[in-house]
Amino acid sequence: MHAYRSHTCADLNKSHAGETVRLAGWVHRVRDHGGVLFVDLRDHYGLTQVLADSDSPAFKAIERLKAETVIRVDGRVKARDSALVNPKIPTGEIEVYVTDMEVLGPADELPLLVFGDQEYPEETRLAYRFLDLRRERLQRNMMLRSRVVKSMRDRMWAAGFSEFQTPIITASSPEGARDFLVPSRLHPGKFYALPQAPQQFKQLIMVAGFDRYFQIAPCFRDEDPRADRSPTDFYQLDMEMSFVEQEDVFAAIQPVVQGVFEEFGGGHKVDAVWPRISYKDAALWYGTDKPDLRNPIKMARVSEHFAGSGFAIFAKILESEGTEIRAIPAPGGGSRKFCDRMNAFAQKEGLPGMGYIFWREAEGGAGLEAAGPIAKNIGPERTEAIRHQLGLGKGDAAFFLGGRADQFEAVAGRARNEIGRELGLTEENAFRFAWIVDFPMYEKDPETERVDFSHNPFSMPQGGMEVLDGDPLEVLGYQYDLACNGYEIVSGAIRNHRPDVMFKAFELAGYPKEEVEKRFGGMVKAFRYGAPPHGGCAAGIDRIVMLLADEANIREVIMFPMNQRAEDLMMGAPSEPTNEQLRELRLRVVSKE
Amino acid sequence: MHAYRSHTCADLNKSHAGETVRLAGWVHRVRDHGGVLFVDLRDHYGLTQVLADSDSPAFKAIERLKAETVIRVDGRVKARDSALVNPKIPTGEIEVYVTDMEVLGPADELPLLVFGDQEYPEETRLAYRFLDLRRERLQRNMMLRSRVVKSMRDRMWAAGFSEFQTPIITASSPEGARDFLVPSRLHPGKFYALPQAPQQFKQLIMVAGFDRYFQIAPCFRDEDPRADRSPTDFYQLDMEMSFVEQEDVFAAIQPVVQGVFEEFGGGHKVDAVWPRISYKDAALWYGTDKPDLRNPIKMARVSEHFAGSGFAIFAKILESEGTEIRAIPAPGGGSRKFCDRMNAFAQKEGLPGMGYIFWREAEGGAGLEAAGPIAKNIGPERTEAIRHQLGLGKGDAAFFLGGRADQFEAVAGRARNEIGRELGLTEENAFRFAWIVDFPMYEKDPETERVDFSHNPFSMPQGGMEVLDGDPLEVLGYQYDLACNGYEIVSGAIRNHRPDVMFKAFELAGYPKEEVEKRFGGMVKAFRYGAPPHGGCAAGIDRIVMLLADEANIREVIMFPMNQRAEDLMMGAPSEPTNEQLRELRLRVVSKE
Repeated sequence: MHAYRSHTCADLNKSHAGETVRLAGWVHRVRDHGGVLFVDLRDHYGLTQVLADSDSPAFKAIERLKAETVIRVDGRVKARDSALVNPKIPTGEIEVYVTDMEVLGPADELPLLVFGDQEYPEETRLAYRFLDLRRERLQRNMMLRSRVVKSMRDRMWAAGFSEFQTPIITASSPEGARDFLVPSRLHPGKFYALPQAPQQFKQLIMVAGFDRYFQIAPCFRDEDPRADRSPTDFYQLDMEMSFVEQEDVFAAIQPVVQGVFEEFGGGHKVDAVWPRISYKDAALWYGTDKPDLRNPIKMARVSEHFAGSGFAIFAKILESEGTEIRAIPAPGGGSRKFCDRMNAFAQKEGLPGMGYIFWREAEGGAGLEAAGPIAKNIGPERTEAIRHQLGLGKGDAAFFLGGRADQFEAVAGRARNEIGRELGLTEENAFRFAWIVDFPMYEKDPETERVDFSHNPFSMPQGGMEVLDGDPLEVLGYQYDLACNGYEIVSGAIRNHRPDVMFKAFELAGYPKEEVEKRFGGMVKAFRYGAPPHGGCAAGIDRIVMLLADEANIREVIMFPMNQRAEDLMMGAPSEPTNEQLRELRLRVVSKE
Repeated sequence: MHAYRSHTCADLNKSHAGETVRLAGWVHRVRDHGGVLFVDLRDHYGLTQVLADSDSPAFKAIERLKAETVIRVDGRVKARDSALVNPKIPTGEIEVYVTDMEVLGPADELPLLVFGDQEYPEETRLAYRFLDLRRERLQRNMMLRSRVVKSMRDRMWAAGFSEFQTPIITASSPEGARDFLVPSRLHPGKFYALPQAPQQFKQLIMVAGFDRYFQIAPCFRDEDPRADRSPTDFYQLDMEMSFVEQEDVFAAIQPVVQGVFEEFGGGHKVDAVWPRISYKDAALWYGTDKPDLRNPIKMARVSEHFAGSGFAIFAKILESEGTEIRAIPAPGGGSRKFCDRMNAFAQKEGLPGMGYIFWREAEGGAGLEAAGPIAKNIGPERTEAIRHQLGLGKGDAAFFLGGRADQFEAVAGRARNEIGRELGLTEENAFRFAWIVDFPMYEKDPETERVDFSHNPFSMPQGGMEVLDGDPLEVLGYQYDLACNGYEIVSGAIRNHRPDVMFKAFELAGYPKEEVEKRFGGMVKAFRYGAPPHGGCAAGIDRIVMLLADEANIREVIMFPMNQRAEDLMMGAPSEPTNEQLRELRLRVVSKE
């Protein structure tokens, strides 16, 4: 017989009754039922109940077992009485009467219980990650992640993409975040960088004539941590295609993402038609470029109804250039209590408040009545025009925000989320997707008035060379994001593969030719020797798994995550280098002034 | 029609004759056949011949095309006359008469030609990697690598393994090589390390209760470059299993490796039975722990025949302790010319030379005669005993080396290779595998006399705790390598999962408990809370692809390799950091004293 096991802890059923078996696993739980010891023996695959009574030679040893000890048992399989069958587990039809037991891995007193649902502080969970990972939730999340990645790979291969590995110890990549640097020992004083994304390499792979590339790629950004972002490295499904336009990329990636959500979405509804929404419309309708479309609320511009109206605050606002009044319709939100709560929400978010109108049955059943101070101030005609524009009726409400869009839009977006949730309008058990397209290539810093790239400088401007002679702020890029349930899960672009157009595009953002050559010399050089039109995208794997696992924190879907201060508490990283290491790298740590 | 192509350059055949098509690709070659221009248009998938005569509106533009320009052409498919069919390419039945042409990506004068077989210096090839990669050899190698990795993955999944990603920005891992360090911005003065292998993490994954792990894992070692090793990062198929013994690991990994060699080995013979050879025997028989078993030569110890013999040099050597005489049999090497050549080889390798005997037909047909000075010195009886032991006969030779094995063994191994190759004994078109087992756990530094681990300190000693009370130099580990054609392609071990045994094992190598706790605290801590017996291995992907692609240099199977000085000439890495970067990391570069 095998040294450790003849079966896993999920294998045995009543067809094995009478057999002598060997099992190994962790002591999940021990119960003493008056002289009979029941042990739930656990391995990766399942649980098997093993037992010993005082006749068993193993009884005394089992009595002393601590939770999470790893043991090997030999025993006889017995079918359980039908009353005792546990239908919840595959091995629930049997139990194993132990004749021999050996401790393979002893366990100290546990700082974190594997059995049960007790909550622990995150620092404890991370310091004892190997225990936390034994718990059902993380076992499930890690297996889900593993299967999601496999499914993505299989789907990419099936679609004719090949996976290539790009360098990890490399040159700085201009993705806009901070690089992690790696000092070079052979070239003291010089540093490598870890790639923020394989962006330049995947473009070079296209220039090198490989037609369809993908990679499950680790990416490295030295960023300050937050819940949906790892402070050090994260993974993306990175892909690139040659001889394509934007719609070709959509057609290639949609089946992959949709397929994964269908396969692992736990039966949630998954959109098959993904609308294209311009960046501008997304901002107007949803207050964000990653809208949650499970929420049906669409905001609208209602400035005309307030211009010169009796609601002095808004009328005044509209006298300044670049301002507007935006409405958030709230079907079913037509009560003062709800409206006041949402007003308070806006105040908590830093705005002076949100004005509102709500519509109710007039007293005495005299028809529809618009309530709230705004309705009074602007009068019935304008109020009614607003109601018509928003398609609202009795029992509904609308909230209003005024000013420059960039000053209230983010709060408006969050208010929309809140309203959708509070009123039960936001669909549950669904994944809703939309391509956000037509991102502006450039933006003006409101303080410095300087024009710079708003996103990726390597995207192709819509209209090519010609459009770059006009107003940069009007230039749109072939750049796109995929939004799902309020998260950006894919981002990509058709690339600018023409050196002439690229230099011009950089010039508009204030980068002279020499600067471009210096910073992106490798890629620019490559484009001079026959570059195909190409484009692609990258899907955030950690975030997709988070959505599928219904977790709010990215650390729940990473095997060994850093904590919020970018430390690995289990392995003790980062740590002090030895003097010898610093000497080899010719580095000195400067003490804080 | 699609903006760039209706078909790839491998799609069209005579069934498309008459169709109007759109193709895009690189100008591989242009030939002018008296007023008719033929262009071989190339993309990732193949070549299509397109042509224009002076009637074509595209004629003038095509005439000006430089090699490697990316173009889009529209045209009509024409079946070729049967005499002009090119059976070597899938599109050889047709050509496309061009009616319209557009340059998508212009090309400057090329520093490296894609068409043809011209050789270029490595620095040119690396600086223009994107051009070199367009050439047939590297296209083929990269696609091979991509498919090999996919095949490994598929085979691991099919065998019940799940892939998990382990951290890349992490703590130093004790694999014996030099770490790459990553300075921490949030914790100035502290450093992360890039993992030399996911060794500790995969063991922690086992402790965390995942039963069968694998990963196509990037590994980072700051090592001095050589032909079969990348100077920065390399990839391994890393795997680990719980509740296993050595033979279980062999049974799991053999089908994967064997399968990949069968699938991609180009019809070479692939062993199905892999012998187990002890480390000791491998050294004796082959002079190396990574023998090339395509070569049938097995060396043998022949000391007894020389002890007290008339061959004074060897007789004298044998008087010192720890010495021996080793023979390399050379069937078919029985000529003075060959023997002298091999003697010269040994001298070139730094030995005083290799003595030899060869057997020939005695003059006048008087039977077998042993020739060479050694035979004369030791006399016919001893010579005949040697011949018997080695199983040699007429036309064969034997070479002899004497001294301490560690001083001649490596050269003996190389001489064995040379002899096998020169005599045509080494099988071609075959992959021959052997598991090298029973590695010693410890070795003594001949200079310091200090006992240290010979390989991985985390391996389980054969015999466990008890054996550690004896002579450390006699302790064998459950540690194994897989040799194939002279390369080590897999390495692994059954791990030491018992803290008590681990502390003892480290103590023997002079590491006190506190030191072990300090260096490997995370793993030692984990082993205290129920660790399963576990083991695994890692297969070197770059090296396996090298073997399959029949390349002698690892850079031929890596998409974007570093040069020998660990520089990326294309991207310009490593490079000087900005002062701002150094300030953020609180580092200063120390100028060379």
